[in-house]
Formats: sequence, structure tokens, C-alpha cells
Amino acid sequence: MHSRHLIDLSDLSVSELEEITRLACDIKQNTDTYYGACRGKILATLFYEPSTRTQMSFQTAMLRLGGRIIGFDNPANSSVSKGESLKDTIRVVSGYSDIIVLRHPVSGSAKAASLYSRVPIINAGDGGHLHPTQTLTDLVTLRVEKGRFSGLCIGVCGDLKYGRTVHSLIKAMASFPGNSFVLVSTPSLGVPEYIKDYLSAAGAPWVEINNLAEAMPLVDVLYMTRIQRERFASESEYQNQRGVYILDREKMARAKKDMIVMHPLPRVDEITVDVDDDPRAKYFEQTEYGLYARMALILKMTENTAKRLDTPPRGTGTKCSNPDCITHREGYLPNLFRKSGDLLVCEYCEERAPQ
Amino acid sequence: MHSRHLIDLSDLSVSELEEITRLACDIKQNTDTYYGACRGKILATLFYEPSTRTQMSFQTAMLRLGGRIIGFDNPANSSVSKGESLKDTIRVVSGYSDIIVLRHPVSGSAKAASLYSRVPIINAGDGGHLHPTQTLTDLVTLRVEKGRFSGLCIGVCGDLKYGRTVHSLIKAMASFPGNSFVLVSTPSLGVPEYIKDYLSAAGAPWVEINNLAEAMPLVDVLYMTRIQRERFASESEYQNQRGVYILDREKMARAKKDMIVMHPLPRVDEITVDVDDDPRAKYFEQTEYGLYARMALILKMTENTAKRLDTPPRGTGTKCSNPDCITHREGYLPNLFRKSGDLLVCEYCEERAPQ
Amino acid sequence: MHSRHLIDLSDLSVSELEEITRLACDIKQNTDTYYGACRGKILATLFYEPSTRTQMSFQTAMLRLGGRIIGFDNPANSSVSKGESLKDTIRVVSGYSDIIVLRHPVSGSAKAASLYSRVPIINAGDGGHLHPTQTLTDLVTLRVEKGRFSGLCIGVCGDLKYGRTVHSLIKAMASFPGNSFVLVSTPSLGVPEYIKDYLSAAGAPWVEINNLAEAMPLVDVLYMTRIQRERFASESEYQNQRGVYILDREKMARAKKDMIVMHPLPRVDEITVDVDDDPRAKYFEQTEYGLYARMALILKMTENTAKRLDTPPRGTGTKCSNPDCITHREGYLPNLFRKSGDLLVCEYCEERAPQ
Repeated sequence: MHSRHLIDLSDLSVSELEEITRLACDIKQNTDTYYGACRGKILATLFYEPSTRTQMSFQTAMLRLGGRIIGFDNPANSSVSKGESLKDTIRVVSGYSDIIVLRHPVSGSAKAASLYSRVPIINAGDGGHLHPTQTLTDLVTLRVEKGRFSGLCIGVCGDLKYGRTVHSLIKAMASFPGNSFVLVSTPSLGVPEYIKDYLSAAGAPWVEINNLAEAMPLVDVLYMTRIQRERFASESEYQNQRGVYILDREKMARAKKDMIVMHPLPRVDEITVDVDDDPRAKYFEQTEYGLYARMALILKMTENTAKRLDTPPRGTGTKCSNPDCITHREGYLPNLFRKSGDLLVCEYCEERAPQ
Repeated sequence: MHSRHLIDLSDLSVSELEEITRLACDIKQNTDTYYGACRGKILATLFYEPSTRTQMSFQTAMLRLGGRIIGFDNPANSSVSKGESLKDTIRVVSGYSDIIVLRHPVSGSAKAASLYSRVPIINAGDGGHLHPTQTLTDLVTLRVEKGRFSGLCIGVCGDLKYGRTVHSLIKAMASFPGNSFVLVSTPSLGVPEYIKDYLSAAGAPWVEINNLAEAMPLVDVLYMTRIQRERFASESEYQNQRGVYILDREKMARAKKDMIVMHPLPRVDEITVDVDDDPRAKYFEQTEYGLYARMALILKMTENTAKRLDTPPRGTGTKCSNPDCITHREGYLPNLFRKSGDLLVCEYCEERAPQ
Repeated sequence: MHSRHLIDLSDLSVSELEEITRLACDIKQNTDTYYGACRGKILATLFYEPSTRTQMSFQTAMLRLGGRIIGFDNPANSSVSKGESLKDTIRVVSGYSDIIVLRHPVSGSAKAASLYSRVPIINAGDGGHLHPTQTLTDLVTLRVEKGRFSGLCIGVCGDLKYGRTVHSLIKAMASFPGNSFVLVSTPSLGVPEYIKDYLSAAGAPWVEINNLAEAMPLVDVLYMTRIQRERFASESEYQNQRGVYILDREKMARAKKDMIVMHPLPRVDEITVDVDDDPRAKYFEQTEYGLYARMALILKMTENTAKRLDTPPRGTGTKCSNPDCITHREGYLPNLFRKSGDLLVCEYCEERAPQ
């Protein structure tokens, strides 16, 4: 891989995405032959906030490769997270392990950790950022279930304004040719303008619809997410509108025979339980494909085993303007920005500010 | 095994009990040769309530077979147990693992989990039900220490009314010929009538005694359990009577030379510490035999590795009358009953109701 | 090893210290060849108080040897630690595992555990006592970085009165010839008299200095520790004096070119972050050497695999005078003392009392 760490999905080129998802499919077919591929290697899962499902998925992936696991999941109880800088913890744990999976509540933590790690870091969620392995999971699901990343009509339904899983998937799929997008949400929870701009720039057709039933016949893939009660404009709108965005058997009856339903899980009530028995429901399979995606990723990232500590880059005098950025918590971090047109983008938390 | 899952001890036939305890004895003799028997396989321990000892026993069993372990033990901290149905969790985790050990506070959870699992489920305790591997442990102990399951005089002492470990052991041993039972308890904490009926139907002699000292000379095996303070009829009865049910050196002096003492542990004060040094005290060995019992069980249950999802059976319109039954918590579960004479027995929680 | 357990560093003879640190250095050079050396063996980490860093270090050590790990780290949540005696827990867990690492808040717990364990116990901290593997870590660091245990001028800085890590290191290094000691602290936090007596008896030169800057040019090794704010004589002394004991670039400029800086970690602010980039800063490497030290120790202690239970020694009628000693919590423990001149020393907590 051209990048040592996986902080954001953009760390993977399109050809690397192709390679990793292809490897994941081979692992799916021949899981047992990969047992032992990480023999003697150790994965550390450092979870500064609990996320049992994600942690279990990474742990299982490493164990299925024949590797071992260490880590913590209980920040309140953990002496590591008390009074010690992220830098020191990462320096120490990267001495113990061969690859680190980090989950942290503060924006930009994964990037910060990567500066001081002697081993590769995988971002499993750092505040505002989403964990890129969810999108990798989604891509493996499409490869297995649809056999292709192109020529698909992709419906996404739910909270499209704040749902970063969805943003990440849309951006990834817009990189491939011939995909179109059906965006299903309430008027106030549609995708942000910059996503629409992204789609238009990529030449991908898209349409916004306020009604899931209408969208059903159009899509090859339906990606469901949840709209949290408090995101509706009012309680009465919640009561009136929620049913519109719940996937049930009736709506499924309007869909194509070979359409598939995806969901990042856990689900609450946005898909009714009786849909589970429909062969087009693939959300449980999706979590298993996530296992293969993570196995493929760990395999690629630990191929080159030499530990090394890069010299951290020199920072500028300017501080990031986002008060929730990790740079405001861990004072030793260099201030790092990249230019994007007229803007400076913080390399930790992606906050944009005028130059 | 004729059943894929182990929800209740009755899922094992008498010949399967024989086979598994025999295998456990062989594992005890040749532990190292079984290392690797579960190579590449993963055991998931899903503990919705903490039970460190039980969890550690299952984990050690799998590790000694060369397998790997995942799981959680901290429901308050676990995102898995928050807001997600048992069905969804089981569907996902049975995609990650090859066998699941479930501990859950609600009656019938293990049966419920088995409906949606692609891999075998072992019940490690679900509310009212007891975990069947404790009784398996007890049987392995009898096989190792007494060499037989028949022709034994078995004393059970303590809370025989509510102590389900004891009920399960009595029922299992009554299946073998030539066993007799000495039931030692306070008048108000004796075994339920249905257990006495069971013994009489099986043709097994039994006697009730209110005094442990008197029972000592009779028994080949003494199974001690604790009477909780609040189970005595009154505080003054507790103060007067508790000593009668405490096993000490003095009472041990009245027992046969080759008698053995068992206890499911942890013990509090129902066996005095100085009894530990008596060679007839086998309760610490018993926990080690429990390890071999669980190794044998995991080995048998993972022999057939193909994952599969059975179609859940169709339920009836009648709800279970037990308000603590899992069917009242997880609404998607089909209502399942079997007939027993004039009664309907809930297949989850074993609650009986008139037809 | 002449002792089965490692309760205190004094359980290791000087030649055993040499042997284990030499083995640790070989493991550092050839880590991969040691993978599998503990194949099929299980290390139990019983942490009655959380210490994530220490636990992770032991777990990694066992995993890098190809062994497996069980244990708990969450006393509040653990049913093991509730209502069960230390003896019973140790009896059970030593049936499951091949070696036990114990961390416990009460003085003397490790010695107490060793009386009832069928497998070797490593003390990873028991209240007043320090965990001896920290000092083993320090010695491996000296062997790797300085190539010798003798002829060194060793500076120790910080809270020398209460800092047991430092006491243990001083005593260990005084056993080797040609070492001298520079003791840097505030007047009220100097080393206890008995340490000075120990040094004088060993013929090791030492000097006390109240100023870190002055000590810098003298030392081959600087062992930094933290002075906690509340240990200063007053808040104003804290504000005036704390800078004197903080290691920064300016002070580093006064040190020898081949001097090394050590610290047991975690650090707070007693070493400024910019010192990290100085090649003489070895505290992060030190934690990695701790891994090799623990690997060497586990390897030596599990060489003889036969489990056995020694008969606990008979105790005296006298109770230990330290109210925090484990003997006052666990009433079944025999009272054990050894003579030291006119004093009786408690074998659990090292409390000294007149005969």
C-alpha cells in the first residue's frame, strides 16, 4: 500500500480498493488457507470508547489469520488512558504489537497516533471521522453480491445529512463509472451540498426523493440507515413521517428481484424483522463480509514487518480552528494543514479555514 | 450429537452423556494430545451478565484445544447489548465464530438464540435455567473419582428447594441403575415434589434427613451447596440451624474412607477451610474436571463444521404465561410449546400451563 | 530457578539475574525463534486492581512465546473477586493455567497466593510491595544500552523516599561492583536511611544532591521518576521547586554524550516532550525491553511443567502488626515470620516487629 496507515478511505487508491476487495473475496472462498498468514503477529485494539461489535470484528479477523490480539476496551477502567498522552501510549503499544486499531472519541486522533507509531494504524472511528473499514465492508458486499462496482443504481435512505457512512460510500462509488444515486430522506435531512457537488463533478446522475416506496423499483442496491427520532423537525413530524422511511415487506414487494438491501448495523426499527427472511436482505451477510474485508486489510498492512518511527513533520504556528480537534487536547502535536483551493484543511480533523 | 445445541441437559441422551464423560476422562489423561483439535476455530463467549469463573472455564477449554476466543463480559459497557435484538447479535456473532457460549439473565434466552444461530449454542445459564455444563462437570467428577455412575449412595445437602444444580444432578443420576439418594435440608428447603415423583418413578430409593451429621456415614458422595441466609425461615432459625448444614472436620470423621465431597463453587462458609486438606475433598479437582468436560463438549459440538441457518419454526397465537420469559422481551420470537400430559410447556422457559 | 515463584526480586540470585537478563537480550535479537516456546501453555493474569499497561506487557510476552492468555482486569465486575477467598480462586485458576500473574491491592497477597498455587506465581504488584519485573526490565535496559551492570554512575531523581521502583533498582545495582549513586531529590524526599546503610554496607559510593542540573554531568544513567504535587512540603515549594526536578533539553545539554535516560512510565511532565527526540532518551525502548524481560522470565518459570501443591507451612500464634497485611483479610493464612537480627519480619508484607 502506498500509505502505511489507514486513517481515511482516501488513503487507498482506486486500484488498492480493487485489490483489497478482490483479496477479501478470495479469503471468503478459501478462509482456512489464510489461517497462519499472520502467525506470530499481534494486533492491538485500543478502544478509548467502547464499540464491542467493531472490536470483535477486528479481533476475529486477526484470529482467523492465525495472529494474536491484545488491547483494552474500557477507558474508565484503563490506567493507560489516565493521565498519559496519546503519543506515549502509542509509542509503547507499537513496541508490543505489529498493527494497531484505534477507536477514540476525539477528531483527528488516528492521524495524531500515526505520527508516533512504529507500526501501521487503522482508524476504527475518531469522533467526527468515520472508520474507513465500514466502507471497505460495503464495497466487499457489493463485489460479492453484485459482482461489480459499476453500472449500479444505488439508493441510500435515512439520515443523509449527518450519516457519514453514507457520505463515504457515495464518494467511493462515484469513483467508478456508470453508477447513479437515489437519495431518499426528509427534506431537512438530505445530503450536504458538497456531496451533490462531488457527484455532479464526477458525472454521476442523482435524484432526491422524499419517499422510500417510490424509490424501491429504481434501485439495484438499497443502503438503509436510521433516522434518529431527535433529527426529525418535530415530534409530530416524527410520528407522521417515520413510517415513510421504514423498510417493510410491502415496500420490498416493489423492488427488483435481484436488488439487495444493506445496512451497517445495528438496526433498531428502520427495517422490520420480517424483511430478514427475504433473500434480498444482505445486512447480516454484510457483517461477515466485513470480517473478510478486515482480514484482507490486516494482511496487506502487515506484509512489510519492519517497525520504524518516522520523524514527525514540522508544524506551522497556526492552530486548527476546530475546538474539538485533537491538537487542542494534546499540545505537543505539530499543526499540520494542506491547501485546498483557497482553504487550509487541518490534516487531523479535516476542518477547513480560509488561508 | 443428535441435537446441534446444548440448551438443557436433556438435549444429551444417556449414551451421549456416557460418551462425553468418557472423552473428558481421556482428555484428562492426555491433555496435550488434544492441543490443536480445534485449531483455527473460534469460540465466542457472550456474557450478558458477568460470571468470570464460568467464562474463564470455557475460554481455557477452547485454548487448551488450540482454538481462539472472542466475546464480551461487560454488559453495561457493551454496545452489542444496547438496543440490539438478541436475534441480530446472534446472527452477526454466529458469522464470526464456530461455537457460541451464552450467558443471559432472562429465562429462555438460550433457546431463543439457538433459533437464529448458524453455529452451535451452549447455554451457560439463562435466568431460571441452570447451565447444563455444571452437571456435566459433576458427572465427569464421579467418573474420575468413583469410576462409575451406578450403585452409589448420593447425599445432597443445602438448599434443595431452589438449588437447580442439585435438581439437575439428581435427575441425571436417577437415569443410572442402583443409585440411592440422601436428601439433607431444613424442613422448608427440601426438594420439590416433582423431584421426589421423578425418583420414585425411576425406582430410586431416597430418604430425607434434617441433619448432616446423621447422613455422613451413609453416603458415597456428598454434594454440598449453600443455604443463603435469607432462605432460612427466620434469623433465629438461621443462627440455630446453620451449623447443622456446615461441613467440618468433625462431621467428616463420621464418613466412609472412600467417600468424596463435591461442591459447585464458589463456597462461602458451608465447608470449613480445614476440610480442604482432607483427601476426600474433591471440589477443587471438580473445577478442573469441568475444564475437561467443556473440552469434550466443545470438541463434539464443533466436529461438524458446516454453518447453517435453520428456518425458525412457526409459532402459535398463545403467549407464554411467564412474564419473565424471553418471549415477552423479544417480540419477534415465535410462541413455541410442547404437550406434556394435559399441560403446555413453553419451549423457552419451561413454564407449564393448562392447554 | 531456585524459587518456584517470583514474589520479590530477592527470590532471584545474582546469577539468576544475570541469566535472565542475558536470555532477554537473546530474545530481543531473535524474537521470532522463541515463538512457540510456550506452545499450549496458558498464562492467567489475575488483576484485582486495573493496571492496563502491566497486564498488556505480560499478555504480549506470553503471546510472543506462542502461549495463550486468560484472566480478568475488572474487579468490580468480576464474580471471582466477590465473596471468594484468594485461596479458592488461586486453587481453581492454578488448575486452569500454567503460570499466574497476580496484581492485588493488599500487601502480601502474592506470597499468600503462592501458598495455594499449583503453578508459579509472578507478583505484578501487591500494595506496598513493588512488582519485581519492573526492576528486571531496568536491568535488561542497562544490559542492552550500557552493556554492563558494573562501573556505572547511576543518578536517580524524583521522589526517593516513597519511590519503591528506585529502592529496588538501587539495591539490585549495589550488588554489582564499581557502581556509584547520585541521589537527586528535595531535602524531605531523600532515600530512607536503610537504603543509605545498604549502600554503605555494600561499599558503593553515593552522594545526595538537591539539584538535577548539577547532577547531569556526573551520571552514566539517569533514572527519572515523578514527584507528586502533594509530596512537596507546601504548594509554594511545589511552584518554586518543581522545575528543578524536570528534565528538559537544557539539562540534557550538560550530560555525557553516551549517558542514557530511563523512566518506568507513565510519565506526566517530569520529562519535557522535546527530550523524547534525544537519542539518549531510552524510556520508550525500556518498555520494549520489559517485554523481553517478561518473556525470559515466563520461559524460565514454565520450564518445569509439573503442577504441584506444596503443603502450606505451619504458622505461629503471633499476628502481623501491620493492619493492612493480607493475613488480616484472609483468616485461614498461617502467620509466618523470619528472623532478622532482633526483629521478626512478616513473610507476607515485610513488616518488622520486635521479637
